Amino acid sequence: MLRVTQANPDPTFINLGIGQPALNLLPLAQIQQGAQMWLAENDPSALNYGVEEGEGYLRVALAEWLSGEYGTAVSLSNLFISAGASQALDLICTLYSQPGDVVLVEEPTYFLALRIFADHGLQVVGVAMDEQGLIPEAVEAAVRQHRPAFLYTIPSFQNPTAVTLPAERRAQLVALAEQYGFLIVADEVYQLLGYTAAPPPPLASHSASGHVLGIGSFSKILAPGLRLGWVQAAPQHLQRLVGSGLVDSGGGVNPLVSAVVRGVLTSGAQQAYVAQLRAEYGRRIRVLDEALQTHLPQAQYVVPQGGFFFWLSLPEGVDTAAQLPRARALGVGYQPGRNFSSRGDLASQLRLSFAFYDEEALREAAVRLGQWYRQLAP
Amino acid sequence: MLRVTQANPDPTFINLGIGQPALNLLPLAQIQQGAQMWLAENDPSALNYGVEEGEGYLRVALAEWLSGEYGTAVSLSNLFISAGASQALDLICTLYSQPGDVVLVEEPTYFLALRIFADHGLQVVGVAMDEQGLIPEAVEAAVRQHRPAFLYTIPSFQNPTAVTLPAERRAQLVALAEQYGFLIVADEVYQLLGYTAAPPPPLASHSASGHVLGIGSFSKILAPGLRLGWVQAAPQHLQRLVGSGLVDSGGGVNPLVSAVVRGVLTSGAQQAYVAQLRAEYGRRIRVLDEALQTHLPQAQYVVPQGGFFFWLSLPEGVDTAAQLPRARALGVGYQPGRNFSSRGDLASQLRLSFAFYDEEALREAAVRLGQWYRQLAP
Repeated sequence: MLRVTQANPDPTFINLGIGQPALNLLPLAQIQQGAQMWLAENDPSALNYGVEEGEGYLRVALAEWLSGEYGTAVSLSNLFISAGASQALDLICTLYSQPGDVVLVEEPTYFLALRIFADHGLQVVGVAMDEQGLIPEAVEAAVRQHRPAFLYTIPSFQNPTAVTLPAERRAQLVALAEQYGFLIVADEVYQLLGYTAAPPPPLASHSASGHVLGIGSFSKILAPGLRLGWVQAAPQHLQRLVGSGLVDSGGGVNPLVSAVVRGVLTSGAQQAYVAQLRAEYGRRIRVLDEALQTHLPQAQYVVPQGGFFFWLSLPEGVDTAAQLPRARALGVGYQPGRNFSSRGDLASQLRLSFAFYDEEALREAAVRLGQWYRQLAP
Repeated sequence: MLRVTQANPDPTFINLGIGQPALNLLPLAQIQQGAQMWLAENDPSALNYGVEEGEGYLRVALAEWLSGEYGTAVSLSNLFISAGASQALDLICTLYSQPGDVVLVEEPTYFLALRIFADHGLQVVGVAMDEQGLIPEAVEAAVRQHRPAFLYTIPSFQNPTAVTLPAERRAQLVALAEQYGFLIVADEVYQLLGYTAAPPPPLASHSASGHVLGIGSFSKILAPGLRLGWVQAAPQHLQRLVGSGLVDSGGGVNPLVSAVVRGVLTSGAQQAYVAQLRAEYGRRIRVLDEALQTHLPQAQYVVPQGGFFFWLSLPEGVDTAAQLPRARALGVGYQPGRNFSSRGDLASQLRLSFAFYDEEALREAAVRLGQWYRQLAP
């Protein structure tokens, strides 16, 4: 049997290192319906090179939906359709940086963004966070010292810490960007996945400043296999993306998929599915939290209010990267903290995701993590 | 009305500058059928992050089909699925070059590839062609002088000249690459569009040398809006593509579209559609050739045997870029030769594409080009 999906864990193994939804949670019926709507149109437009900023009717539907969800108007003229957040970030690196440039990131940050930055020859400098996210004073000091190409931040339900930046700090970051003339690239793929309350409006809502490129994605709120996302930014930045050789040569990104997703948005299925996800992930958080308190009381963490992740701190001296094989032997996996560090720190932290596994598996994972912890040398 | 497709010419204007198929030539029914096959599977696999090298069953079907078409075995282990040729080229630039590096290109070459190279800060050096394509001695001299990051070539039915590199020169290029240790990036998107005979096997068939990355695409043989293509290369290069931050973070490229196109391949619809395209484009070539001989006898050209383009040389002194507004005023468009030059030459050349317009429009375009030519100051 050929491998089709990226994550294919052994069924006896509960790998909470996987930060993506499981197949049985994906909205097959909703996307089938979107495909049926496209089929019924009997229109070949989506088969040709697409308009550079992205399929127009998808952008209209997306602008309208995001305006309602964010509680702040999102204009059609600020939206560029991308092939997911990763492709948007890659394109931004190509257009807005040179090898050797510094990119500021949160310490810790999304480990695969670090890989994209490495491919572009960028030098990554981590900036300190506290329990409210990036510390503006630390950002200012780093900007003065490094004059970065841009600051990469995940302001809502951060990967991996689940921390959300308050509205005042968001405004402070934008003020710093204006003062020092740097760009903020905000990875806001968890913005719509708040389970207890909505987070503050996205950093992208400050895009009129001309200093923010906000990245969104259908991967976390609909399906990763669509490879569809967006950039919300001021028109001058959209022109730069649209005017890239990649987009001019290949046309707008993913027109056929855009035509399918347009139907999912206009039918209301996207809205209903996000509500379903929020309820499901919220339940899983409560289950995993309770199970961790019972079986791994040594772990310290803030209960996530959104996103995909628990960020656990174990007592100092535990090396979660070195101890991963031991966990795997007990049938449980996680992402070691060090993967998220721009400087090889965070040895005693680890990230757990509740997106791939159901409640029963999450409980069992906590049991196994407890066994694992007890086996570690004191 | 919102713009949906990239090219939306005024219906009274015949723009032979457009190098893409028209909507009425696109295989809507075949892709609808592929979508129906995906729907009938009722399988969510294609909705999740895809396996990094690309959807396995698509790669199996593609390897089998290409093996038959190329007359030379294409192995599954040499295929990476990309989001079209442009995305493949962009990713190769990210991974295999640094700003300031030299890229050798044909003079003339595909103008939007030049844009992608510019976005990556690359320095482009044109290498001389003759009526058989790249001149190996000229390549050798340029390699010695510039030590390029890679050579970018379009070996079959080149864009814009329609010239095809003979088998012996292909072997010579590969021998040079081995001798001097450089990489050949072969853009082979017209390889399957020969109308009188098949071209020599693609440069990608030399991929075992480890010096060739061959780029293919469904854009010219099925539909651009799919954003689906491939790279055929030795396993060490595939590992590099698969191991990029972009692919690791976003998963394999376009899993949902891959699942649709898989059905188009396995049903035989792809094969039948390519045969239809070859017949249609072959007829258009005969019509445009005859009409140009009648109405624009001053133009010199070699009748294309495949691909999308006629490459016309007008008498020296004609500046096709400067004279384009005059042509537009007469309701006809083309791509000025200078767009394809790495050094601002080729002022009296122009490129015509027969992909977007039917026979009647092509005849009328030739009439208008004749009017235009007669209006030019002697």
